[in-house]
Amino acid sequence: MLEELKQKVYEANMMLPKYHLVTFTWGNVSGVDRETGLFVIKPSGVPYEELRPEDMVVVDFDGNKVEGDLNPSTDTPTHAYLYKCWDNIGGVIHTHSSYATSWAQAGRGIPCYGTTHADYFYGEIPCLRTLTGEEINEGYEKNTGVLIVSEFARLKKDNIAVPGALCKNHGPFAWGRDPMEAVHNAVVMEEVAKMAYRAELINPKAAPAPQELQDKHYYRKHGANAYYGQIKRTK
Amino acid sequence: MLEELKQKVYEANMMLPKYHLVTFTWGNVSGVDRETGLFVIKPSGVPYEELRPEDMVVVDFDGNKVEGDLNPSTDTPTHAYLYKCWDNIGGVIHTHSSYATSWAQAGRGIPCYGTTHADYFYGEIPCLRTLTGEEINEGYEKNTGVLIVSEFARLKKDNIAVPGALCKNHGPFAWGRDPMEAVHNAVVMEEVAKMAYRAELINPKAAPAPQELQDKHYYRKHGANAYYGQIKRTK
Amino acid sequence: MLEELKQKVYEANMMLPKYHLVTFTWGNVSGVDRETGLFVIKPSGVPYEELRPEDMVVVDFDGNKVEGDLNPSTDTPTHAYLYKCWDNIGGVIHTHSSYATSWAQAGRGIPCYGTTHADYFYGEIPCLRTLTGEEINEGYEKNTGVLIVSEFARLKKDNIAVPGALCKNHGPFAWGRDPMEAVHNAVVMEEVAKMAYRAELINPKAAPAPQELQDKHYYRKHGANAYYGQIKRTK
Amino acid sequence: MLEELKQKVYEANMMLPKYHLVTFTWGNVSGVDRETGLFVIKPSGVPYEELRPEDMVVVDFDGNKVEGDLNPSTDTPTHAYLYKCWDNIGGVIHTHSSYATSWAQAGRGIPCYGTTHADYFYGEIPCLRTLTGEEINEGYEKNTGVLIVSEFARLKKDNIAVPGALCKNHGPFAWGRDPMEAVHNAVVMEEVAKMAYRAELINPKAAPAPQELQDKHYYRKHGANAYYGQIKRTK
Repeated sequence: MLEELKQKVYEANMMLPKYHLVTFTWGNVSGVDRETGLFVIKPSGVPYEELRPEDMVVVDFDGNKVEGDLNPSTDTPTHAYLYKCWDNIGGVIHTHSSYATSWAQAGRGIPCYGTTHADYFYGEIPCLRTLTGEEINEGYEKNTGVLIVSEFARLKKDNIAVPGALCKNHGPFAWGRDPMEAVHNAVVMEEVAKMAYRAELINPKAAPAPQELQDKHYYRKHGANAYYGQIKRTK
Repeated sequence: MLEELKQKVYEANMMLPKYHLVTFTWGNVSGVDRETGLFVIKPSGVPYEELRPEDMVVVDFDGNKVEGDLNPSTDTPTHAYLYKCWDNIGGVIHTHSSYATSWAQAGRGIPCYGTTHADYFYGEIPCLRTLTGEEINEGYEKNTGVLIVSEFARLKKDNIAVPGALCKNHGPFAWGRDPMEAVHNAVVMEEVAKMAYRAELINPKAAPAPQELQDKHYYRKHGANAYYGQIKRTK
Repeated sequence: MLEELKQKVYEANMMLPKYHLVTFTWGNVSGVDRETGLFVIKPSGVPYEELRPEDMVVVDFDGNKVEGDLNPSTDTPTHAYLYKCWDNIGGVIHTHSSYATSWAQAGRGIPCYGTTHADYFYGEIPCLRTLTGEEINEGYEKNTGVLIVSEFARLKKDNIAVPGALCKNHGPFAWGRDPMEAVHNAVVMEEVAKMAYRAELINPKAAPAPQELQDKHYYRKHGANAYYGQIKRTK
Repeated sequence: MLEELKQKVYEANMMLPKYHLVTFTWGNVSGVDRETGLFVIKPSGVPYEELRPEDMVVVDFDGNKVEGDLNPSTDTPTHAYLYKCWDNIGGVIHTHSSYATSWAQAGRGIPCYGTTHADYFYGEIPCLRTLTGEEINEGYEKNTGVLIVSEFARLKKDNIAVPGALCKNHGPFAWGRDPMEAVHNAVVMEEVAKMAYRAELINPKAAPAPQELQDKHYYRKHGANAYYGQIKRTK
């Protein structure tokens, strides 16, 4: 079942070693099928060199395995909760990519210092609080999803305009309209995490880009008036 | 038309992934034909793996497309303005290369800390101000070119001796006598941006190289008395 | 003798260049055979490109060569002492991997800033004191092993829960149930060394991850209740 | 003439791209023939991809070309002066390798923070002053050699025990018993430059390794009592 989606999710997962987002098995990508209310995700702890499209696991929005020989990623309940609450996303990714994780370990959101960031993320990429002991001990992975969704609501962040977040002392999650766009956003987050880190070391008083510049870059790639690329994107 | 130039511009663009100057499609190189007053540039948002020489787009100095199936790079008006004002350049490049962009995000020019820098850039690589809200909202890309040209005039910088600049909160632009030299200068800028960053962390009181040393290195590679390489360069 | 183990130790050594843990010959991995009380280790100073399974050297727990044409690694007495004292390990590794060695040179243990660390190392990775002049001059390599074992006892560190350490002004040692797991732990140490370094530069006041989060991640991968991966690990 | 040496010098030069010590043509290696009093060096400004053994240039100790179609490296007079004054070396290398050059730009010698450094360089790698305006304007490249030799004498540094130095605001030079050992030492210098840089950022109060530890590591690889590797080195 969902063979086409499995292939897509497989290909999106294989982008992780290509873009140097993972060491060993420290990452996972999923993709959703809105018609059936199911999603497809990488199996847990399987090395990328051995991964095959047919190894992908089918799961429902409560995190129950529906099809597949292998256990789904340990982080499956986080993915499930995001799909359940956010019907505007089609793919989710979690990694321990080096620079983004460093910001998560530092407990700081990534300021928008330039147009590379503004092209894809509208404003700061937030760093969300660590879970409480109780939240960790009872349903840790699901509660990670709950935290992301509730903090985006509290911070009044549009999850399409800011397609990713850092979990403090943990690492980045990102998402998109499909699995490949989710990976794309994770690559961007890693890249802007790297440049923001260096910008602050070059100038400890570095300030975010002016709002007009952020707006210009974000909206030349997104929305009705976008003019970047070959086809009008209608995101 | 301009098939030979298209091939050159294509090859220069393909240097970007080779020298690790780009992530995804975040870069573009162009080359000019002074006889016809036209230039050739990379199409917008096309992945480097898919790029072909015949995809290059021909544009005039007002940024109007003259030939080509695809949209030219979004930054085309910047390139156009530079060619229009500076008749001594033959190639232009824009990237979001990691270290140079970090300096741009930090809002600081790159000091000339050593001979690697002095071999190619005579003195500091300036970081130009961000555009005003008005300049951004009306003709952003063209105004980026206007800023570069007018600031080089105001700072009395020779655009051949300093073949590149940083746009604050954005990233680097560079140029040269032809598309490949423009790329070459962008690689140098990235490399000196990296070493200047580290030099300041090693010694926060690091000072620019003595003027005599800068002169020596610049002029052993440039001008009538150059003696580096196999043929006298008469730049 | 021990042909199968030689093959395993050879393969584990070849992971070092693959994971960028070594420059030249600066690393060595060994694996033990508990039945015979012997272990197999890389020969000293042999380039990885030239290494063959049959070059591996067989040594006893006092560091005496039992079989092999080549001299064993200079660090053999350290490996021998670890195997002698710790019967719960099956593989040992020493490298000069770049980030872990930088922490060793800085004389600081690596704090547990996040889940990447907690997944494999339970708490700080300690930085052990330099040896005294006497300890260095008489049996340096053996005394390195003595230091590791005695400091783990003094610090009440479980060598399975913390499968590695830094030797001050020197570099990292790591170990595991078999040679490949030892390498795996060395890769993790290098990765968390890198991210801890960056986290502190991003936020000089960065604090270790909350204990509940460390516990959660460590125990979802280790012990009777582990649920990561495809088979229950019973480490 | 000197065909065998040309081949060796060629191979040593080709190690530079392999070990990531050069961008473009920014490096050169030479090797000497003590019988004829001639040395062989890379031609100036030739890309490594195009380099052939027969392109190597033969030069005498006053820097005069004796054989070869191409111009020798611009830095030839520096190499010549080192061979003339130091009869215990057989190979010389100059690069703009990234970390070593950053220290040179910072104007600081590289402290011996650990055993990786002590294994090859006995004590700090010195950063030599910039040349005076006069020294730069009259015989710059030769005077770089004069500076290295005279400063090693003034600092009472043994050029075999410390086989390299930084020239302030410029970059590293290194040497060895033959061209390949010179390259080897340049790789080590780059590696210890990288780790010293990070060690200081991890701990601004990092101190050099204790003298006993430096002695132990240096002398287990060098001198009559060396016991590292497969054959006693009698350097």
